[in-house]
Amino acid sequence: MATTQSGLLIGQGFDAHRFAVAGTGRPLWVAGLHWPVPEGADAAAAARYEGIEGDSDGDVAAHALIDALLSAAGLGDIGSLFGVGATAHGAGMHGGDMLRETVAVLREHGYEPSSASVVIIGNRPKIGTRRAEAEQALSEAVGCRVSVTATTTDHMGFTGRGEGIAAIANALVAVR
Amino acid sequence: MATTQSGLLIGQGFDAHRFAVAGTGRPLWVAGLHWPVPEGADAAAAARYEGIEGDSDGDVAAHALIDALLSAAGLGDIGSLFGVGATAHGAGMHGGDMLRETVAVLREHGYEPSSASVVIIGNRPKIGTRRAEAEQALSEAVGCRVSVTATTTDHMGFTGRGEGIAAIANALVAVR
Amino acid sequence: MATTQSGLLIGQGFDAHRFAVAGTGRPLWVAGLHWPVPEGADAAAAARYEGIEGDSDGDVAAHALIDALLSAAGLGDIGSLFGVGATAHGAGMHGGDMLRETVAVLREHGYEPSSASVVIIGNRPKIGTRRAEAEQALSEAVGCRVSVTATTTDHMGFTGRGEGIAAIANALVAVR
Repeated sequence: MATTQSGLLIGQGFDAHRFAVAGTGRPLWVAGLHWPVPEGADAAAAARYEGIEGDSDGDVAAHALIDALLSAAGLGDIGSLFGVGATAHGAGMHGGDMLRETVAVLREHGYEPSSASVVIIGNRPKIGTRRAEAEQALSEAVGCRVSVTATTTDHMGFTGRGEGIAAIANALVAVR
Repeated sequence: MATTQSGLLIGQGFDAHRFAVAGTGRPLWVAGLHWPVPEGADAAAAARYEGIEGDSDGDVAAHALIDALLSAAGLGDIGSLFGVGATAHGAGMHGGDMLRETVAVLREHGYEPSSASVVIIGNRPKIGTRRAEAEQALSEAVGCRVSVTATTTDHMGFTGRGEGIAAIANALVAVR
Repeated sequence: MATTQSGLLIGQGFDAHRFAVAGTGRPLWVAGLHWPVPEGADAAAAARYEGIEGDSDGDVAAHALIDALLSAAGLGDIGSLFGVGATAHGAGMHGGDMLRETVAVLREHGYEPSSASVVIIGNRPKIGTRRAEAEQALSEAVGCRVSVTATTTDHMGFTGRGEGIAAIANALVAVR
């Protein structure tokens, strides 16, 4: 298909991952940031910083943004770029690094991220306490303004029960 | 980050709230409209007009639009603008008024809403019966065309079981 | 409301449907494609190709795209255009044909789809195995680039339990 008259293309992304079992000690990474267990936290408090399952660091915000950017550019999705499983190219990678690699692929194909936005849906971590930092980390990775908002689902559904965390993202990409 | 070449920025929003317990008598507000209990409704029929929990009126459609607009403009989210809890700035406010205040903040920062759209996900109220009215109320609040669509989840998940209602929104904002 | 300065309008769409009971023999249609039971499949393998419930073919990806396009153009939603129930205009229609009819309505009103994107959320079918084909089918139906991505919810929620399938879409529409 030809590029649009406006030179702007839209993409949508979504991702959801399960939290690791409490006590696993998996580091928690969301929105391009590490969320360390606070010093002196007891077991109950530490459990709120248990990480997210996944072949990579499980950063649903970064993953949803990657799919929004790739779909805007018509270049596949996170699975086709990074693979699936413990031996995949993306295994063990942080979301920020995956975003940087995604944007490099876009630029090779003549696309430039124009703006992007992601909503993080879950009980934890408390994104609002570090929103500016998260927006800076993701914006630097993508090379354009990336906004981060966060909400819960009022104890409803899998995010409300604390089983996992989800993210919905969208993006505009310019044709150079 | 610099503004985009195109002068258009994209934002994503999501919100979900629980319905109040039947018989609470909480007014139902969704999509900028009050949905009154029909005259002569029995208890079962009236229960379908029980309101939505929340510090404000619980209007998930307005809230998702607010987050879409704020994230497009890179100005935080509904929690940072209106606060959280019974003593918050937004406590008791209607969604339409919160939208108007949001747009005033955007304009102070040099942004103008360009278009926006929201999907309402839930069993009730029947949005389709008053879609034109809802679109008019939200469009007047935002100052650009706002579209409203609605769907159910076929009795699946928390919206399908009637526990609550959710909304997904997106928005384009122009840099003046 | 007047059209935007940029001439671009944004829309959001969402849909979710339940899978038919295994053994029903309902054909599976998603993303504009028929997903036939593989030759020689036993009952367990065939169950993974059981179709989706709905008055039409239940193609959630096409339906979410239809709502994204209609809302971008401010022309209602899939229910107002195709009706609801077994005797509705859209009953028995395939998603691709519904998309073509939707785009014809947009053009009658002076709108042209500019780009669109859809995320399919569910355990099956494995969209990645036929993504190029799905994108071609949907892009031809809509008349602009349509991207398709897919993800699961890590066995969480109604999509993770295999009860049903959902899709989130967005679209840009140009004012001619």
